[in-house]
Amino acid sequence: MTYFSYERLFDFTIKLLGAIGCPADQALEAANVLLSADLRGIDSHGVARLIGYVRLYEKQRINATPQISITHETPSTAVVNGDSGLGLVVGPYAMRLAIEKAKKVGTGWVAVKNSNHYGIAGYHAMMALSEDCIGISMTNASPLVAPTFSKERLLGTNPISVAIPAGKEPPFVADMATTTAANGKLEILQRKNETAPLGWIQDKDGKATNNVNGVMEGGALLPLGGDREHSSHKGFILGSIVDIFSAVLSGANYGPWVPPFVAFLDPDPNPVGAGIGHFFGAMRIDAFRPADQFKQHMDQWIQRFRNAAPIDPNQKVVIPGDPERTMEKIRKKEGIPLVQPVIDDLQFLSKQYQIKL
Amino acid sequence: MTYFSYERLFDFTIKLLGAIGCPADQALEAANVLLSADLRGIDSHGVARLIGYVRLYEKQRINATPQISITHETPSTAVVNGDSGLGLVVGPYAMRLAIEKAKKVGTGWVAVKNSNHYGIAGYHAMMALSEDCIGISMTNASPLVAPTFSKERLLGTNPISVAIPAGKEPPFVADMATTTAANGKLEILQRKNETAPLGWIQDKDGKATNNVNGVMEGGALLPLGGDREHSSHKGFILGSIVDIFSAVLSGANYGPWVPPFVAFLDPDPNPVGAGIGHFFGAMRIDAFRPADQFKQHMDQWIQRFRNAAPIDPNQKVVIPGDPERTMEKIRKKEGIPLVQPVIDDLQFLSKQYQIKL
Repeated sequence: MTYFSYERLFDFTIKLLGAIGCPADQALEAANVLLSADLRGIDSHGVARLIGYVRLYEKQRINATPQISITHETPSTAVVNGDSGLGLVVGPYAMRLAIEKAKKVGTGWVAVKNSNHYGIAGYHAMMALSEDCIGISMTNASPLVAPTFSKERLLGTNPISVAIPAGKEPPFVADMATTTAANGKLEILQRKNETAPLGWIQDKDGKATNNVNGVMEGGALLPLGGDREHSSHKGFILGSIVDIFSAVLSGANYGPWVPPFVAFLDPDPNPVGAGIGHFFGAMRIDAFRPADQFKQHMDQWIQRFRNAAPIDPNQKVVIPGDPERTMEKIRKKEGIPLVQPVIDDLQFLSKQYQIKL
Repeated sequence: MTYFSYERLFDFTIKLLGAIGCPADQALEAANVLLSADLRGIDSHGVARLIGYVRLYEKQRINATPQISITHETPSTAVVNGDSGLGLVVGPYAMRLAIEKAKKVGTGWVAVKNSNHYGIAGYHAMMALSEDCIGISMTNASPLVAPTFSKERLLGTNPISVAIPAGKEPPFVADMATTTAANGKLEILQRKNETAPLGWIQDKDGKATNNVNGVMEGGALLPLGGDREHSSHKGFILGSIVDIFSAVLSGANYGPWVPPFVAFLDPDPNPVGAGIGHFFGAMRIDAFRPADQFKQHMDQWIQRFRNAAPIDPNQKVVIPGDPERTMEKIRKKEGIPLVQPVIDDLQFLSKQYQIKL
C-alpha cells in the first residue's frame, strides 16, 4: 500500500484521458467523477478502473469524443444517447439535464443508452444537492448476479444511489449495490486470501459457497438477502428494477446482454440495445414543500436516527454518507492508498502514454 | 380455515364502511383496494384489517368523510393532505393525480400526508398499468424495525411497489417490504407455533433470535439483509428512503413518530407531522420511448429471466407478480380462506353494525 496525493492522481487522470483524445472539459469532469470514488473509499471504482477504460478505448468500445444527444424528451423526461462515451462524462450530462427539468417542472428523469461504466452512482446523485434537489442515480452493469433460483448470471451489481439534502446536518447519501456484497468487499477478501460469509456467492451449480473466487469459477454474486429464506428475491427485484429503468426505458442492453466491462471479453454479437444504461432523477424539494421546512425535518430525522439506542454502546447507527465523508476528509489530508497491482497498472499506463505519474 | 367468496367479503366490506359513514363511492374504492390483498394472497392486508380500521374510526383517528386536498403542486409534483381519511381512499386519489400529471408532462410524483394505512402498496402502483405508465408506490408505517446497530424500533416495514407494463407477458409487479420478512410471514409461523430463521428478528437487547414473538416482547424486525455481514444496512437505507419520501417530503410523521396502526396504542402526543405518509409516482412509458418498443423489450426481458437456467429443475425463476396472479385466479374461483380469528372479528363487526356477513 503506497499513498498518493489526490492532486497527483487527479493530474495523472486528466492527462491520461487527454492522451486518449478526451476533450479537456470532459477529461476534467471524468477525473472529478473517478477520483471521488478514491476519496470516498470506494477503491474498486476509482483510478483502479483507469486501465480498463483505456483498454476499452483501444478496442474502440469507448468513444473519447462522443456527441452526446437527447433522442426524445417531454417537460419532465428525456432519453440521452451517450454515443459510446465514458459513463464518467455521459452521466453528469444526463444528471444536469434532469436537474434542469426539475427546475422547470418540479422533477426531471433521464434514461441513458449507449453509455459505459459511470464510476460511483453516488457522484451523480450528489450533483443534485447543491441545487436543493433530491438526486437519484442508478445503472446496470455486466452480468455477475444470479436471480433467486437460477445458476445463471443475468444481472449486474446494479447500484442505486439517493442523495437527500439536509440543513445543519450533512446530506443523506445512500449508494448501494443491490447485491449482498459489493465487488470491492470481495476484492479485499481475495487479496487477503480469506473466505466469504455464506450468502454472498454461489458456485456454478447454484450452491452457496464461501469461496471468494466462486464468481470467477463460474458462480455468481447473490442478490441482497443472500438466500431465499432471507428474501434474496427482494434483492433480485431491486436489481431488476434498476436494469429495466436503466435499459428497457432507454434502449440500452439489459440482463445478460449488457456488455462486459473488460476489454478481453467481447460484447454479445446480437445486442438487444445500445451500450449500457443509466437512470437519473432530480426532485426539487420545494416542488413539495418549502426547502427550509424540509431541511429542518431532515435534520430532525438524521439526529433521531443517529442517536437511536445502540446495541453496542461503541457502535452508533450509521447515517448513509457518514463513512464516506469521514474517509474523504482523511484521504484529502493523508492521500489515497493504492495497492501494488493498481500502482503497476498506472505505471504501465504512464510508460505507454508517456505521462508522469 | 373457511372459504368465503370474493363477492361475499366485498359486499360485507362495502356495507360496513358505509355503516361507519364512508360515502358510497369511497366505500367501493376502499373495498376494491382491501379485497385485492385477499385475492392476491397478502392476507395480512385484506379483510383481516377491517376491525382495525373500524376501531381507529371509533377513536376518531380515521375520518370517514375526508376532504382530501392538494396543498401544493407543480406540473410534475403535488402534496396531498388526506384529512385523516382511510389510506384505501387517499391512496387512489393521489395515484390518480400522479397519473394525470404524467399524461401532461411525462411523469407525476405525489407525496401524501395525514393519511392512514393504505392496504397493499401494489394496488396503487398497478393503477398505472392500464394507462401505459410505470407505477410506483411506497408508504411508511408504525415502527417495528430497528436500524442496523440499534435496538430501537424506528421504521415501519415500509414497502415499495413498482409496476411495469409489458406486452404479451403480464406486467412486472414488485411489492416488497424493506425487511427480511414481511409481517404476514411471521403471523403464519406464530399460528403454527414455529421458530423463525435467524435474520428476521432481534430481541429487546438487539440480539438475533428465532423467537417468532420477539417483536411483541420488545424486539424488532430486521431490515432486508438480516445482519451486518449480509448488508442489513442496505435494508435500513431502503426503509429510510421510503420514510423520507413518504413523510419528510409531505409533512407526515416519520420514524418513531408514525402513529400506531392499532387503536389501543395512542399516537405520540408531540407529532412531527400529520398522520402517516405515502409517496406515489407515475412515469408514462412513451415519455421515454414508443410504448410498443418498450413492451416488446419488456416481453423479452421477462422471457429471458423466466427461462434462466434453474438450480433445481422444478423451480424456475419467479417473475415479480406471477405468484400473486396465480393466487388471484385460484381465489376468484375457490374463494378466500380466512382463519378463525379473522372470521371471529368479522362476525363481531357483523353483529355490532348489524350487517349480514
